[in-house]
Amino acid sequence: MKAVFHHNQLAHFPKRYLQRGHIVDFPEQPERAKRLLKGVRAAGCGMHAARAHGDAHILSVHTGRYLKFLANAYRRWNRPKGKAFEEVMASIRPVERPARYPTDILGQAGWHQQDFSCPITEQTWMSIRASADTALSAAELIVEGEKSAYALCRPPGHHAYADRAGGFCYLNNTAIAAQFMRRQWDRVAILDIDVHHGNGTQGIFYDRSDVLTVSIHADPRKYYPFYYGYESQRGKGAGNGYNINIPVPVKSDDEVWMGALELALSEISDAAPGALVVALGLDAHEADPLNGGAVTTPGFARMASAIAKLSLPTLIVQEGGYLTDDLENNLASFLKGFGG
Amino acid sequence: MKAVFHHNQLAHFPKRYLQRGHIVDFPEQPERAKRLLKGVRAAGCGMHAARAHGDAHILSVHTGRYLKFLANAYRRWNRPKGKAFEEVMASIRPVERPARYPTDILGQAGWHQQDFSCPITEQTWMSIRASADTALSAAELIVEGEKSAYALCRPPGHHAYADRAGGFCYLNNTAIAAQFMRRQWDRVAILDIDVHHGNGTQGIFYDRSDVLTVSIHADPRKYYPFYYGYESQRGKGAGNGYNINIPVPVKSDDEVWMGALELALSEISDAAPGALVVALGLDAHEADPLNGGAVTTPGFARMASAIAKLSLPTLIVQEGGYLTDDLENNLASFLKGFGG
Repeated sequence: MKAVFHHNQLAHFPKRYLQRGHIVDFPEQPERAKRLLKGVRAAGCGMHAARAHGDAHILSVHTGRYLKFLANAYRRWNRPKGKAFEEVMASIRPVERPARYPTDILGQAGWHQQDFSCPITEQTWMSIRASADTALSAAELIVEGEKSAYALCRPPGHHAYADRAGGFCYLNNTAIAAQFMRRQWDRVAILDIDVHHGNGTQGIFYDRSDVLTVSIHADPRKYYPFYYGYESQRGKGAGNGYNINIPVPVKSDDEVWMGALELALSEISDAAPGALVVALGLDAHEADPLNGGAVTTPGFARMASAIAKLSLPTLIVQEGGYLTDDLENNLASFLKGFGG
Repeated sequence: MKAVFHHNQLAHFPKRYLQRGHIVDFPEQPERAKRLLKGVRAAGCGMHAARAHGDAHILSVHTGRYLKFLANAYRRWNRPKGKAFEEVMASIRPVERPARYPTDILGQAGWHQQDFSCPITEQTWMSIRASADTALSAAELIVEGEKSAYALCRPPGHHAYADRAGGFCYLNNTAIAAQFMRRQWDRVAILDIDVHHGNGTQGIFYDRSDVLTVSIHADPRKYYPFYYGYESQRGKGAGNGYNINIPVPVKSDDEVWMGALELALSEISDAAPGALVVALGLDAHEADPLNGGAVTTPGFARMASAIAKLSLPTLIVQEGGYLTDDLENNLASFLKGFGG
């Protein structure tokens, strides 16, 4: 299997994260990408550099004002220099309606940053743009005829909405890639096996039937993103029935995840998509610091092998999975299990 | 004029506030109430202790789940003890729809705390309950026949929605008092002259015509709460036309505020309410650290005098106004100007 990466993804490195009110180190570190690169090599994948794609592909799932905000927020926030903290971080939110889109940078930050887990540093725009290019370059390989490809995206994307960052995510790489693949196929399926519900992806495609979204994740009654990921959230309008949430108990093991995956694969088969995007989080692993799953390293190979049996052109996009000694092994396990 | 206070309001004292990403001291300090007490004495008002009122009055404008959250959040957050930071402070928000009300304390905190300016300490519930009792006790005086009364409420309330805290506010004292006064009068008007838009009050009464809400405030295009306070937000359904926003430029002086007040008073006269609640922020003052207005100390007397000319039974509820050497003088100026 070919793998795609862009080194600009290593630059983004916020320092601050809020955990139950405590300020701690930001868990979504560049070191993640370095370990994942080792996993790619261990799986024997050929590595390709991502090439630049125009904003038009990103604008096919994100709003123009959001892109403008992301590109300019850091500079606007720190003007006059030294007045603000070094990372753009809103302290407010437009929760109630009616709410008007504001002109002020603090107001806009509150609009576009839905939680405390998506600070914007001087390097953020460069890295998230490179992450989207990585997903697009890998999607291009699939459209050109590769049976599978892996996009080593970082920062991740599946919590990002059309107009909003959140949960370490800024641009929804998975959604951007799926939309790109729609050029070739009438229906594309997204299967999200990150331990967190892919709420941004759900939101982007919620009223559409041409992109089926299926997510397996730790029960949101007890786990981030709390408000989203329930079975009752099934899509609306034309998309009704095309958003499938399969929550599993927090700290579920291989057997529970395989059972959920069986359901997910059956939903995907039923919708008969032409291609698949796997939103691959590795944070359901038993040693992951975010503590949401109990999947073993061989468990990822089992999941991959079951997914491969769909025999669909498959793009694998990296989502979460945090710093453990197993991170690279978990990726290698999945990629080898997929048969790539 | 009679003034009402409850000493339990002094207990709530969060330590942490986020200002352009910097962590600074919390501006809404107990010291505010001490200075306002001096202002009450300087104005020659008689001081009365607030008496306890049942939750039913609060539940007439707030949701049951919100009250339950506020009463229990601190204990739930710190269990097991020492795991969490000492103040309940959500790092996430349910911005997108559909969103389900969560069961987890962190999820609920994100649901009910709409910004970073409403941490919950061990003492918060006691103080906000005392603040609501203060407003209710003063409203009772009006219902019993007093022409005017002053409720020294702290924490303030006008940014709090039916289901949500924000901007130093937890229970919307002004709304609770106005709803209480509806027992006596078919229509009650609220005039909010805090320098910030009273977005919580707007939200609570947005679809109702029996409580007219009028707010004068610094232009939300440049000032908190950014998303709310626009002239175009005029109410909906039966409330259409009964929510009046009069934004003035940031750092406006006495003349501009008096001009806006003239408009506001004319709107109130037109709606012919039986009684008035003034949401009295003193933060439009030229020396206020939140830097939103340029009103002078005598300017507050001018405003009060103009409001008094409505000759309505008038409850004055304390909202914002932060630590300056002028805080007590500004309150005394208003109360004397009102003729109390």
